Amino acid sequence: MTDPRGILYVVGIGPGAGDHTTPAALAAIRDAEVIVGYTTYIKLVRHLIDGKEVIRTGMTEEIGRARAAVERARAGSKVVLVSSGDAGVYGMAGLVFEVLRDLGWRRGDSPALRLIPGITALSSCGSLVGAPLGHDFCAISLSDLLTPWPVIARRIEAAAAADFVIGLYNPASGRRQRQIVEAQRIIRQHRDGATPVALIKSAYRKLQQVELSDLDSFLEFEIGMLTTVLIGSSNTFVFEGYMVTPRGYTNKYTWDGEAMAGQVPGRSLVSPGALGTGERKA
Amino acid sequence: MTDPRGILYVVGIGPGAGDHTTPAALAAIRDAEVIVGYTTYIKLVRHLIDGKEVIRTGMTEEIGRARAAVERARAGSKVVLVSSGDAGVYGMAGLVFEVLRDLGWRRGDSPALRLIPGITALSSCGSLVGAPLGHDFCAISLSDLLTPWPVIARRIEAAAAADFVIGLYNPASGRRQRQIVEAQRIIRQHRDGATPVALIKSAYRKLQQVELSDLDSFLEFEIGMLTTVLIGSSNTFVFEGYMVTPRGYTNKYTWDGEAMAGQVPGRSLVSPGALGTGERKA
Repeated sequence: MTDPRGILYVVGIGPGAGDHTTPAALAAIRDAEVIVGYTTYIKLVRHLIDGKEVIRTGMTEEIGRARAAVERARAGSKVVLVSSGDAGVYGMAGLVFEVLRDLGWRRGDSPALRLIPGITALSSCGSLVGAPLGHDFCAISLSDLLTPWPVIARRIEAAAAADFVIGLYNPASGRRQRQIVEAQRIIRQHRDGATPVALIKSAYRKLQQVELSDLDSFLEFEIGMLTTVLIGSSNTFVFEGYMVTPRGYTNKYTWDGEAMAGQVPGRSLVSPGALGTGERKA
Repeated sequence: MTDPRGILYVVGIGPGAGDHTTPAALAAIRDAEVIVGYTTYIKLVRHLIDGKEVIRTGMTEEIGRARAAVERARAGSKVVLVSSGDAGVYGMAGLVFEVLRDLGWRRGDSPALRLIPGITALSSCGSLVGAPLGHDFCAISLSDLLTPWPVIARRIEAAAAADFVIGLYNPASGRRQRQIVEAQRIIRQHRDGATPVALIKSAYRKLQQVELSDLDSFLEFEIGMLTTVLIGSSNTFVFEGYMVTPRGYTNKYTWDGEAMAGQVPGRSLVSPGALGTGERKA
């Protein structure tokens, strides 16, 4: 089984425009003899796959896709399994490991694995609206097709209460509309209605759409399978149409880069309340 | 002020090896006349900057760096501000907007902004250990230099209780050792001691180190400024030295891709307890 030894590349191509796909991902696709992927992603790399065997599958056929990729590589081929974004983030990489485990694969067996990271939707979408992910954030998928809704709801509640910037993947689909409404309701209990919210669809692709809204109003926009929703923390602000979550430099420094009274560079932040300067906010 | 109009590229170069830097990031660096960045990041792109003006600054001089980049671009130059990873994730992008706001900049003024996403540490580190980010995750910086520790501790607690995969940025430094110990203690109250933990240092760089451990033992390893710590959820498993968080396909499907009894493809997951098949786990 280990000779000839196949290779399985698990590749994230990023948002799908060539400019944001890494040289490592492109090299893997060029090197492969067999390309496996969801039809839409195959289309994004069609200029690279002339003369290669292509195994396309539909969107709900993830298990079949992972099995096909693993089995062809196991038999000795160089195979690339293509995901959009990062293959490790809600992508195919995890499923590949589950298939390998089911087959009793061991390190050293065929296929050899090559995991190539890509730009995930949080980063590509974030760059289109400013710097929404400048401080602690989380990613939550609203799809309850594989995860019980109470688990998802508990994560939304926790993230909202602890003031994370929240990125929602798979917020809705033609059939699934209830979850984003419920998410808005939960988050609104912890955050101001004016909290900035960005909706990004098809980032860096032909039909790209970007909307900036707020927590009270964002449900008025169309939200579908290709939308990523970014919800600000209590510190996130909108400036000239950009959404920005600051890291916190102005908690400690003046704009000349000098530490403020009572603060020491390289040492823990002293909360304004503890300084006793009388400048504490009411 | 708008003529001549400068350009400010804010660029994430990913983990820093050329193979994982996007064509868009490389093009921005090539196009720029002035390169601004932390010395270490400038070194990573030194092969691209022959003949260009370089403004290097030390690690704690973020405000000065952002100001220098904005001011040179505002005066008409093409400037690139270089971050590692993604410039929007705990990076320089947020600070650029704060500087612009302080200067009274408006859209249409000089400089024009170009935000180029990069592969963030979560993705690059994740790809080196398997697929740890296959389901809901969060990023928390343990640095309390700019954020009060109680805010950070509350986020750790919330993420641990709601079963997120947790990525810890800036876990420790020479002077700052207490936070990672405290984080371990908080998370351990909610998760099994055998929960997989990965420590990744200098991903895709010359001194790369990867360790797989668990929640009870990971503090025995050296953890510093260049380490990213990935802590699994209750579903994360280790398989052949890889750390994997499954998406949940096996909750619903057999390995032939058929839906299990009581489950319907494309519909909400029915929890095993609700099926009444007698197969509910005790």
